Amino acid sequence: APSAPGRARALARRGLVVAVRAEAGVGGINPSIRKEEEKVVDTVLAGELSKPLTPYCRCWRSGTFPLCDGSHVKHNKATGDNVGPLLVKK
Amino acid sequence: APSAPGRARALARRGLVVAVRAEAGVGGINPSIRKEEEKVVDTVLAGELSKPLTPYCRCWRSGTFPLCDGSHVKHNKATGDNVGPLLVKK
Ligand code: FES
Ligand code: FES
Repeated sequence: APSAPGRARALARRGLVVAVRAEAGVGGINPSIRKEEEKVVDTVLAGELSKPLTPYCRCWRSGTFPLCDGSHVKHNKATGDNVGPLLVKK
Repeated sequence: APSAPGRARALARRGLVVAVRAEAGVGGINPSIRKEEEKVVDTVLAGELSKPLTPYCRCWRSGTFPLCDGSHVKHNKATGDNVGPLLVKK
């Protein structure tokens, strides 16, 4: 049988779900970002970056994903983890 | 009292630990990459990318971190998660 997220994605593909907010299973790392997508991939066009240095989120907790908003600090404190952003320099 | 990862990092700073491999606590997302670092941050110099498109890991499971090696596929299958890389285009 498909997993809960698998079922949610199948329903989303059929247009039957307006908003899906599924928790990742045990060992998942993305609790809430774009769970209706089968795989969350983002593309940066390096030539079009507006700032000299742009931090991109790798903790899946940012309110401005795919950008980093500093939420990794709270995640690290709460869990003892050590994750941080990818900095893209022009 | 400091957490186990906090203690490990404090020891690492004092040069007392050669190799540290700590599991992230409950809700952590990085099981094993550079756990001796307080925060894992990486920098991409966009002007020096060798390929037109370079995928960077956001699942913390890559054997070639900070690059993506496709390990997110196994992680997603095992957990029902939906994470994927950040693609940096020249
Ligand atoms: S908010 Fe996710 S890495 Fe900073
Ligand atoms: S291996 Fe981690 S995102 Fe691809």
